[in-house]
Amino acid sequence: MEQTDKDYQFMLVAIEEAKKAAKIGEVPIGAVIVYKDEIIARAHNLRETSQNAVTHAELMAIQDACQVIGSWRLEETTLYVTLEPCPMCAGAILQSRIPRVVYGARDPKAGCAHSLYELLSDSRFNHECEVKEGLLAEECGQMLTDFFRALRERKRAEKLAKKTNTEEI
Amino acid sequence: MEQTDKDYQFMLVAIEEAKKAAKIGEVPIGAVIVYKDEIIARAHNLRETSQNAVTHAELMAIQDACQVIGSWRLEETTLYVTLEPCPMCAGAILQSRIPRVVYGARDPKAGCAHSLYELLSDSRFNHECEVKEGLLAEECGQMLTDFFRALRERKRAEKLAKKTNTEEI
Repeated sequence: MEQTDKDYQFMLVAIEEAKKAAKIGEVPIGAVIVYKDEIIARAHNLRETSQNAVTHAELMAIQDACQVIGSWRLEETTLYVTLEPCPMCAGAILQSRIPRVVYGARDPKAGCAHSLYELLSDSRFNHECEVKEGLLAEECGQMLTDFFRALRERKRAEKLAKKTNTEEI
Repeated sequence: MEQTDKDYQFMLVAIEEAKKAAKIGEVPIGAVIVYKDEIIARAHNLRETSQNAVTHAELMAIQDACQVIGSWRLEETTLYVTLEPCPMCAGAILQSRIPRVVYGARDPKAGCAHSLYELLSDSRFNHECEVKEGLLAEECGQMLTDFFRALRERKRAEKLAKKTNTEEI
């Protein structure tokens, strides 16, 4: 299988992970780490469920992958993530020496691979990554758009219900 | 007690943490998180021991503090750390909404509060921190200098011993 086909295949798994997050009310972001064509870690955002600020998909996948490999150096791996990494996750990618990152949608508000900073390709750090962006970007971005639209509608409905209740009293 | 005195007191605890790291062969960096004048989390760098790339002092302290507070939002806290945060830890500080950071020595190679980037005070992110730098900077930096000097000497001695052994054979 060609690299591009493999990339699609693994990004689809990252999208599956993101959908798991949406199902439990978490912002739908998923990540997968691949070593020698095998998935060694997969995770989705769990910030609300865990109430732990660092439980982003990438950061959890990196920790699991370190355990599988038995080392903090994740050499010869590729990380697939549905959304451009934030500063924390971009930093964790550098710390774990992941050589290749493939992401879906850009994050104009916090993205640190291209949007706000290019942390993954700054030669002043002791590691640089190859970065491929925009893979299945529409699907990855649409999940987020749908999630936030549904959230706004739910909040509006709750507000309306509260107002109606108050008027009835 | 005045804020400056409190800052010294808590940074001394972060230095104690860093010393614990040095004792087990880890790069000596320590962190403490304080909420309403009480230490709620303290941690030291454990990367080699854990073989987990994200086990920096700040990241572990943040996770512990989230558990203590019961929320991913660490409002009204101060994080004390002996070395300027790397991109991952600066990002974790933003993610956990820590309002105030006090650090010791600058890190010209990876520091993301002042040295390479000013991530903690970039108004484009959804959180900004107050940052105080240089507290007990000499002590914090000296621990690192001593650690790396001892490491170099140990490596040199090992190399010499190996060479002598080979010559004897």
